[in-house]
Amino acid sequence: MSRIVQKYGGSSVASAEKIKHVAGRIAARRRAGDDVVAVVSAMGDTTDDLIELAQQITSHPVAREMDVLLSTGEIVSSTLLSMALNEEGLDAISLTGAQAGIHTDEVYGRARIAEIETGRMERELAAGRVVIVAGFQGISENFDVTTLGRGGSDTTAVALAAALHADACEIYTDVPGIFTADPRVVPQARPLKDIGYEEMLELATTGARVMHARAVEVGAIYGVDILVASTFDASAPGTLIHKETTMEQGNKVRGIAHQDRIAKVTVRGVPDQPGIAARIFEPLAAANVSVDTIVQNASVENLTDLTFTVAPGDLEGALDVVNKMLPVIGGSSVVSAPDLGTVSVVGTGMASAPGYAARMFKTLFDNKINIEMISTSDIRITCVVDADKVGDAVRALHAAFELDRG
Amino acid sequence: MSRIVQKYGGSSVASAEKIKHVAGRIAARRRAGDDVVAVVSAMGDTTDDLIELAQQITSHPVAREMDVLLSTGEIVSSTLLSMALNEEGLDAISLTGAQAGIHTDEVYGRARIAEIETGRMERELAAGRVVIVAGFQGISENFDVTTLGRGGSDTTAVALAAALHADACEIYTDVPGIFTADPRVVPQARPLKDIGYEEMLELATTGARVMHARAVEVGAIYGVDILVASTFDASAPGTLIHKETTMEQGNKVRGIAHQDRIAKVTVRGVPDQPGIAARIFEPLAAANVSVDTIVQNASVENLTDLTFTVAPGDLEGALDVVNKMLPVIGGSSVVSAPDLGTVSVVGTGMASAPGYAARMFKTLFDNKINIEMISTSDIRITCVVDADKVGDAVRALHAAFELDRG
Repeated sequence: MSRIVQKYGGSSVASAEKIKHVAGRIAARRRAGDDVVAVVSAMGDTTDDLIELAQQITSHPVAREMDVLLSTGEIVSSTLLSMALNEEGLDAISLTGAQAGIHTDEVYGRARIAEIETGRMERELAAGRVVIVAGFQGISENFDVTTLGRGGSDTTAVALAAALHADACEIYTDVPGIFTADPRVVPQARPLKDIGYEEMLELATTGARVMHARAVEVGAIYGVDILVASTFDASAPGTLIHKETTMEQGNKVRGIAHQDRIAKVTVRGVPDQPGIAARIFEPLAAANVSVDTIVQNASVENLTDLTFTVAPGDLEGALDVVNKMLPVIGGSSVVSAPDLGTVSVVGTGMASAPGYAARMFKTLFDNKINIEMISTSDIRITCVVDADKVGDAVRALHAAFELDRG
Repeated sequence: MSRIVQKYGGSSVASAEKIKHVAGRIAARRRAGDDVVAVVSAMGDTTDDLIELAQQITSHPVAREMDVLLSTGEIVSSTLLSMALNEEGLDAISLTGAQAGIHTDEVYGRARIAEIETGRMERELAAGRVVIVAGFQGISENFDVTTLGRGGSDTTAVALAAALHADACEIYTDVPGIFTADPRVVPQARPLKDIGYEEMLELATTGARVMHARAVEVGAIYGVDILVASTFDASAPGTLIHKETTMEQGNKVRGIAHQDRIAKVTVRGVPDQPGIAARIFEPLAAANVSVDTIVQNASVENLTDLTFTVAPGDLEGALDVVNKMLPVIGGSSVVSAPDLGTVSVVGTGMASAPGYAARMFKTLFDNKINIEMISTSDIRITCVVDADKVGDAVRALHAAFELDRG
């Protein structure tokens, strides 16, 4: 008998029919003898609908109230799934984040889990019940409802798996796993059998939106193996995210990630002295502009160029801030480009083996794709390119690194 | 400076526009210096929509899960109203039933409030905040969500007014108060200036569905004066439900209540001996048949007839039970009538003054309306009549008791 934590995303519980399907899967698992804790997201577009409702009231909803409002979406789906399991003849109970003992800090909209009190869940499991937990939410020290941010139900599931010492953590979604690239862009893309935590993190933060990055972090910290698999296709094995124990020979590139649209801002002629970066990025953070990649060129005559990327919707706000700061920091000019995208190759040990960067740049050159900006980590190389070249770049790199060959 | 508890019903918060209107009313009150606690129902048809969703999953939803599901409707409207108040520049906070400290027993679907811990509400009020409480819900000893039954937000409001020692309790709805009869049936019906708790209880339980009967009971027990008034017409004074302190001269009938459709079941030839009634009504309760009025005729030769009324939807279930019990209790036959209604005259002191019953019966006779069954309390006389005569009966009685004259 194993203890399993599962998570079903919004598209897996989008209708009464789909909820019944999920109940059938859980019931089969339970009848096979496993203890099951299932985390659910809100049904289909519920979260967007609730945001829309709030927007009809005010363009600046209070963050605390927004969290309480959004938390209801997951509560609704958790009760319906529990009803469906009871209808299947199983004993099941739904728990809100608060009832499941998920304690967080009080940063509304992107709270972090501080501690999980498992007492109630353990009692329900001991009583033979399937436990359904409303994902994406927790409770603060002050007994206020918090939410973990978009995709937070993944984090709920992985954190519960760690706290409950589960034997497995399974994330069910509408795709059969983590792909070598977005299959909508690369028809030859194929699901990976497994992938390391760090590789998954790089994929998640550079555009492969299958998993919430923080869920992967939690998995890495607590050593929770995470299976990402399809809710609807039980025959597909899915992808296991885990600590890589064998250093495979052969292809060290695991996947190609991309972002369709980003914008770039460059501050030119900035004096190369300590504290300059803070004087730009602190006011950007204060203005709620989320900065993605930052690159600073080598300085020439003690002047340097500082470039960063933002979501297109944040470009205007970023330019406001940077133009205001320009006289203070003594830069010469601000230039921006709105219609860019990124393409990244990701793989463990890539940096320790030579030639990957060169092959990436040559592939882009051969395909007449100009590189606007480069940034790298130990296991990732990202190039900023024209937005309308992103698809070509992903397909060319997928072929060049022979990812279609398995 | 007064402390006010207000309640806004589902039709008062049915849309973003209406929520903003309610926020405007609360803001005006707050700016005038009052402390305000506002209880809200779910938006418009939300509760029905959630029930429909559960029905798509199962025809027998687990009661505990149903309560969690339904409680989300009031949570949603409470957060939206809080956002709207913040948008108006006021400091406001929404609280769920649990956060408001509303402790109940564990009878899902019709829980009763056991105790209200006012600590959190008092702190928020002391901090100058408007407190919005999600109506209709509480929390059990086991930290499970419970609901108080249809119309339960009224009860929430009156109980909060009692627990917070509020100076006033105001129930805002889509009608301007308690009418002498349903204005859709009697165009001459007019709102009452005031009414006693017991009269209001009789009106509420015999068809005037403006107030939740349990809210009136709580008001009577704790001596909370309840103003029922219009959300949309601020010029209408509303009706004050309170302890009647003056015994008015003149018309002792305060209103005519009615029920459009009920069904009647008569068990004939029942041996008149102790325990017979229990042997009929216990299995009915076990089968979830809610019995309304019960009448037992005087026995003739130690045999009696036992008649009771039920909602039309419960008739089939009631007949199943009674026919099964007939051999056990030794009755001779069961007869039923499906298409009936009730009409009631209600007024304090009616029983102590002669002639009211006679005038009621004569009025019905003069209008060729046959009486199928009679039941009375100290302050109410109810006649069961043909369903299609209910409207005529209400109009005739409204005129006969001169209720249109004020």
